[in-house]
Amino acid sequence: MTTVANRPRAKVHNRDRDAEILDAARTVFEERGFEAASIAGIARRAHVAEGTIYLYSATKRDLLLKVVRRWYEGLIAEIEEALAERVSVEAKLRYFAHRQFRVFAEDAAIGRLLVRELRTAPDYADTDLYQLNRRYTRLFTSAVRAGIETGEISSEVPSNLARDLFFGGIEHAGMGGMGGLGPARIAERAETFFALFWKAVAGDAVASEAPRRSGFAKRV
Amino acid sequence: MTTVANRPRAKVHNRDRDAEILDAARTVFEERGFEAASIAGIARRAHVAEGTIYLYSATKRDLLLKVVRRWYEGLIAEIEEALAERVSVEAKLRYFAHRQFRVFAEDAAIGRLLVRELRTAPDYADTDLYQLNRRYTRLFTSAVRAGIETGEISSEVPSNLARDLFFGGIEHAGMGGMGGLGPARIAERAETFFALFWKAVAGDAVASEAPRRSGFAKRV
Repeated sequence: MTTVANRPRAKVHNRDRDAEILDAARTVFEERGFEAASIAGIARRAHVAEGTIYLYSATKRDLLLKVVRRWYEGLIAEIEEALAERVSVEAKLRYFAHRQFRVFAEDAAIGRLLVRELRTAPDYADTDLYQLNRRYTRLFTSAVRAGIETGEISSEVPSNLARDLFFGGIEHAGMGGMGGLGPARIAERAETFFALFWKAVAGDAVASEAPRRSGFAKRV
Repeated sequence: MTTVANRPRAKVHNRDRDAEILDAARTVFEERGFEAASIAGIARRAHVAEGTIYLYSATKRDLLLKVVRRWYEGLIAEIEEALAERVSVEAKLRYFAHRQFRVFAEDAAIGRLLVRELRTAPDYADTDLYQLNRRYTRLFTSAVRAGIETGEISSEVPSNLARDLFFGGIEHAGMGGMGGLGPARIAERAETFFALFWKAVAGDAVASEAPRRSGFAKRV
């Protein structure tokens, strides 16, 4: 009886501890980079014994994978929910553009870890990160396809090219670094970018209206 | 008298030899990657003694820099000439899009060397490669500004965002790899991309005409 009763509590406790380890690992990886980060340093930061980390994760790379996966899953869940709350495809994609700009502004360090340490690894296509990346871009291309159905987006726009323009354009805009910009400037850039993107993809019916409605932010 | 007469011939001879060394180095770097490439292997391929390479370039990294610089300067000169031959900004930017797609299709290996070994190095902003990159993107932004002057491009389009959309979009489209595609498919993709880009940036006067005139290529 006691063992059964204790089980849920032990699980909750472990989940808290796991979250503490992942929080500590993320901080150390972001501050020091993957190479310089040490399991000992992460254990100190999480207030656990080094052996506890190894029980949780066999290698430093596996620990990084877990950190990035948790971040990615949280981001996907957040975007999924926000897209479901919006009705028009224009509103969905505008939200997505703003959120993606904020990824570059707020999560630049973990994004760099993802690209440098994991996405360029030879086994990337076999990892579940690759699957998460597909889920992420599918949120976008599904919205584009829905927009083609409703006529909000021109049926002549190939969804893969819309995707390249959207993610490639934002990535390029974020390369110069947006860490120093406040939320208002980030939002302004996202809005200007979205106006340009929407003009490229909007269907004939909304195209003539769209630039006036959404408006270009003042030139930065 | 003989020394003076011989000087030009010696220079020509050296320039040929330099080109042979750079050709051999490019081939070896592209085939083996930077780490695995050896000065000895490059010397063998260029049919010169290993010491001759060191006379020409003190380090392997310096040799890579010279290879990439020669390629980059050739590309810039070619684009500069082609842009000068075209009158309308639309024709200039369409050419640029096609050429940039071909960079990803034909020069992917040297592009990867540039990004991985040189552009991510901490001293990149101090190198002349950085200056070449600025010259390259300025070819684009100058054309955009000229287009804003003539009204071909909307005055509401910030030239830095047009640049992000253009280079970021093509980079993203090229990431999946275009090595297996023939010239016709590359041209088709470039044309579809350009139609989308041009719709985003074209001024009101040409915007309503542009999609019909340039036409979207069939969905790939």
